[in-house]
Amino acid sequence: MKEDRFVVTPWEVSGKVDYNKLIKEFGIQPLSEPLIGRLKKHTKDLHYLIRRNIIFAHRDFDWLLNEYEKGNKFYLYTGRGPSGHTHLGHLTPWIFTKWLQDKFDVKLLFQITDDEKFLFKENLSVEDVKKFAYENILDIIAVGFDPKKTKIFLDTEYSKTLYPQAIRVAKHITFSTTKAVFGFKNESNVGQIFFTSIQAVPAFLESVFQGKNVPCLIPLGVDQDPHFRVARDVLPKLGYYKPAVLHSKLTPGLIGGGKMSASDPSSTIFTTDSPEVVEKKIKNAFTGQQATAELQRKLGGNPDICSVCQYYYYFFEQDDRKVKEIFDAERSGKLLAGEHKEDLAERAIKFIEEHQKKREKARDQIDKFILRD
Amino acid sequence: MKEDRFVVTPWEVSGKVDYNKLIKEFGIQPLSEPLIGRLKKHTKDLHYLIRRNIIFAHRDFDWLLNEYEKGNKFYLYTGRGPSGHTHLGHLTPWIFTKWLQDKFDVKLLFQITDDEKFLFKENLSVEDVKKFAYENILDIIAVGFDPKKTKIFLDTEYSKTLYPQAIRVAKHITFSTTKAVFGFKNESNVGQIFFTSIQAVPAFLESVFQGKNVPCLIPLGVDQDPHFRVARDVLPKLGYYKPAVLHSKLTPGLIGGGKMSASDPSSTIFTTDSPEVVEKKIKNAFTGQQATAELQRKLGGNPDICSVCQYYYYFFEQDDRKVKEIFDAERSGKLLAGEHKEDLAERAIKFIEEHQKKREKARDQIDKFILRD
Repeated sequence: MKEDRFVVTPWEVSGKVDYNKLIKEFGIQPLSEPLIGRLKKHTKDLHYLIRRNIIFAHRDFDWLLNEYEKGNKFYLYTGRGPSGHTHLGHLTPWIFTKWLQDKFDVKLLFQITDDEKFLFKENLSVEDVKKFAYENILDIIAVGFDPKKTKIFLDTEYSKTLYPQAIRVAKHITFSTTKAVFGFKNESNVGQIFFTSIQAVPAFLESVFQGKNVPCLIPLGVDQDPHFRVARDVLPKLGYYKPAVLHSKLTPGLIGGGKMSASDPSSTIFTTDSPEVVEKKIKNAFTGQQATAELQRKLGGNPDICSVCQYYYYFFEQDDRKVKEIFDAERSGKLLAGEHKEDLAERAIKFIEEHQKKREKARDQIDKFILRD
Repeated sequence: MKEDRFVVTPWEVSGKVDYNKLIKEFGIQPLSEPLIGRLKKHTKDLHYLIRRNIIFAHRDFDWLLNEYEKGNKFYLYTGRGPSGHTHLGHLTPWIFTKWLQDKFDVKLLFQITDDEKFLFKENLSVEDVKKFAYENILDIIAVGFDPKKTKIFLDTEYSKTLYPQAIRVAKHITFSTTKAVFGFKNESNVGQIFFTSIQAVPAFLESVFQGKNVPCLIPLGVDQDPHFRVARDVLPKLGYYKPAVLHSKLTPGLIGGGKMSASDPSSTIFTTDSPEVVEKKIKNAFTGQQATAELQRKLGGNPDICSVCQYYYYFFEQDDRKVKEIFDAERSGKLLAGEHKEDLAERAIKFIEEHQKKREKARDQIDKFILRD
């Protein structure tokens, strides 16, 4: 594998992602200053994920704002594949989605693709994914979505609604297309090959419910984009709008490179981790600092490859000025790994402890959110 | 196409089917005299479809009787793809299935694959297949199944039950397998490729319901066998029995060759045809008689290729002795096309008129039979 090779698909993210290259490869649009300006007219302020270009690209977001300005309100759709516990990387697009819901006062459909994870993970049983699904739902509710405007469903519990719509999509997708877009092979199982049809459904389901065309906005991790490349081709053939998409960068792991991934627990902070575990993981994080304190003071570090800096940037410091101070201190050699990590661990533990409280409270709220046939 | 070429798949039957060849190609077993004898021990008499070798082959029917004799009762599963109105050819396996239900006093699951027909028929909409589904259900009920022991469902109306089970099957079926078994290509749509997983579910659904392994017997037209070749590979991996199968020959068309097919209406008697239409279709039937009455009297005809004779054989004369008389009369030249057809038309019209009465009564009975999530 060459140094600059990276892979981003819904089922694999590896290598150091070059987002400019990805924009070209995926055929998506960078989120431009004028477009961000149009967004701000409606939201008054801008979420730090937008300001920092973590939400970095889109499909047809300009069209969505046109429609909104004409009085054609949109709804939100995002999702989660329940292959394990929730980690901080998952929360990024959810936190942003909640912000959008609050600012635009819109409905959200939240799809839990338990079928997908069962079909794609050799060792996960139906029971495993269902268990993780309900664990993940606690985290989703803990993010603070409006129970009156948010519906969460598991694909297997909502398949009387989803499957009849999915076959309408499936009729327009050939195996060739899924080969080209997802890299499926003759050895792929037939559930995997069909699955994208199920993931497409919530992108027009509100139109089915309302009996008229309703614009849909999908905030997601950019690795999920291929599904909607396919869905955007098919939906107009069924008489629906193409969904608009806002793409989020993938949260880097604590060890550096790739995205935070459940398959590498030491690189990943789960929302279910104990404070001790969080502290230990952060202590072992890759910082990109020099080999010794003396060298670090003399030469400085590189915040762009320092996981600790990235965690301030992605999560734990929402004040842009303060982030700049931290990055500058890292670069100048003023900030040493030890105190740097200690501060981050403190913030992370505080966040996780608060999140876990909300997560416990969420147990009684599931019924308010869940949608079953 | 060579004279002896024929094709039998769930979606295409063409050419003159050589059932002995088909038995070898499909790897199914001919229904032997000793096995028929074992069946008769339980049923006392034998249905004419068995006596005439129209039910001609099986998979594991001997095993099924072993289980039955050990007190391990089976259930029945058959189905219908609602791509048009029901014709006489569809009724054959249903009439036989009803006989099995009566003789063994067992439960029947009747699957209506509206999803399949939508996915495989370019020009059929979701609404079209649903309309035909409910038309077909009238015919199914008219056959006389026991409402206490028979459940009929449309795949799209029962997908909350079916889809979560289908993905368990799908995980064990590769695209390669569906290519080999069904002849799918890269251009096949992903719903078609997935579909066999849905058709497999009723073959173990009763085991899911009862929480224990229940043997399943599937009486079907032999063209549907490929689905269960796949299902029989997969089900043991999920802990279920392989379903047993009884194969029916495909009812010949009135014009000769192939099977009675909805795509060739002049060759096909629909249960919704008026007496006038039935009469006209039979008048135009291919008889295999000589060109003139004189020649026919002199040389005789060939009942094996005579559609009219075949219709006595498949449907309208259940007395074996009388069928022999009709065949002999045809062979000897005693029977001329005109009177031959007139008698058949009379019987067919009587049958259709009685069926249509039952069909009308069935409208009020749908709720007793239908299973929805």
